[in-house]
Amino acid sequence: MKMKMKPFIVLAHHEPQSFCGALKDAAIDVFTQQGYVTQLSDLYHMSFKPTADWGDFVSPNNPDYLKYGAEQRYAYENGSLSPDIVLEQQKLSESDLIIFIFPLWWHSVPAILKGWLDRVLTPGFAYGRNQTFANGPLKGKRAMLVFTTGAEPERYDSKDDLGILEHHLHPIEHGTLRYCGLDVLPHYAAWQPAHVSAEQREKYLGEFRERIAALLEENRLE
Amino acid sequence: MKMKMKPFIVLAHHEPQSFCGALKDAAIDVFTQQGYVTQLSDLYHMSFKPTADWGDFVSPNNPDYLKYGAEQRYAYENGSLSPDIVLEQQKLSESDLIIFIFPLWWHSVPAILKGWLDRVLTPGFAYGRNQTFANGPLKGKRAMLVFTTGAEPERYDSKDDLGILEHHLHPIEHGTLRYCGLDVLPHYAAWQPAHVSAEQREKYLGEFRERIAALLEENRLE
Repeated sequence: MKMKMKPFIVLAHHEPQSFCGALKDAAIDVFTQQGYVTQLSDLYHMSFKPTADWGDFVSPNNPDYLKYGAEQRYAYENGSLSPDIVLEQQKLSESDLIIFIFPLWWHSVPAILKGWLDRVLTPGFAYGRNQTFANGPLKGKRAMLVFTTGAEPERYDSKDDLGILEHHLHPIEHGTLRYCGLDVLPHYAAWQPAHVSAEQREKYLGEFRERIAALLEENRLE
Repeated sequence: MKMKMKPFIVLAHHEPQSFCGALKDAAIDVFTQQGYVTQLSDLYHMSFKPTADWGDFVSPNNPDYLKYGAEQRYAYENGSLSPDIVLEQQKLSESDLIIFIFPLWWHSVPAILKGWLDRVLTPGFAYGRNQTFANGPLKGKRAMLVFTTGAEPERYDSKDDLGILEHHLHPIEHGTLRYCGLDVLPHYAAWQPAHVSAEQREKYLGEFRERIAALLEENRLE
């Protein structure tokens, strides 16, 4: 019997009442209705530390010179990563569907979420020599970016305006998540929730709930 | 008489002895030799806060709901941004050449530098309605990305491998810096300083010093 999926939501928004918060609640609601227990990392609520530094290693291998990637690998192999990183890696390990929810800031993730990627996706755990893409350690898991924007979609159609959205997401979707072996699902963008009507916001939430429900259905059929 | 340029280096590296540190020293050395006083924001040394949150506003306009961009604009207009942000904006205002030095992490800037972009480039100060690109408030200033990589250059030639480097940098170079009015200079990449020979590292530093010197020369001729 296939073990039941544990969905994992990584939320990076500073305001609990925000539309990102509503998207998070919608996802948890669908998961719960279908009997799944959601794991949540609400990075702001946790005061997640974004900065990669000495504090990430309980007993560094070379305390005289911080070679961050080498220390990450050493600490992963020796069980000496800081507890906050270990906890995030555990949640990732126990999940096969990871949903990142955030506002698109400067066409990318907010710093607190970039810090999660920088600190949690360590060598050894998330990638390694000859362990990338199809051979990535996180293979078999699915990931999805879900974000809100301040600008209209058509502004992301031109390199000369805000740039091509697919290009902006590529370093994260492909160069990071897929690189670690994750199967990246099409992202969900809620365009300008602060500027559209209440009806449009409800429409977004409905669409998003359907997307989430379809993912669970897909999972069940595997 | 044209006022003398004040170069501004924003450094985002966790290890002072790193090659990023050497690039920073090289730039300051060239600046100093030519009589320029460098402004430096060594983000790690400053323990720069990357997370955009309530702490960024001395007296929020709406303390019940954090709408970050709106509070940024309000605080900028009312002089109530947190002192660390005000200081960075002052350095930017007094400079006409801004050099960002960082290791390329997940094909982008480390979280601490993403936080600098998120928090310092506020509406009002760095962009506004009808004040973007050619009309951006930071027009007349030049900016340059200088970074080290862990991978070989050829790995950034394909969308299917690590992705196209130009695409990865576009959200920062174009969608952020140029968006705010800055004139973006070609970036300087020091490829794999941790893996190349000492001679190659010296070659990088020599090339970089020449690039910096040429920028000053260009400036003088204007």
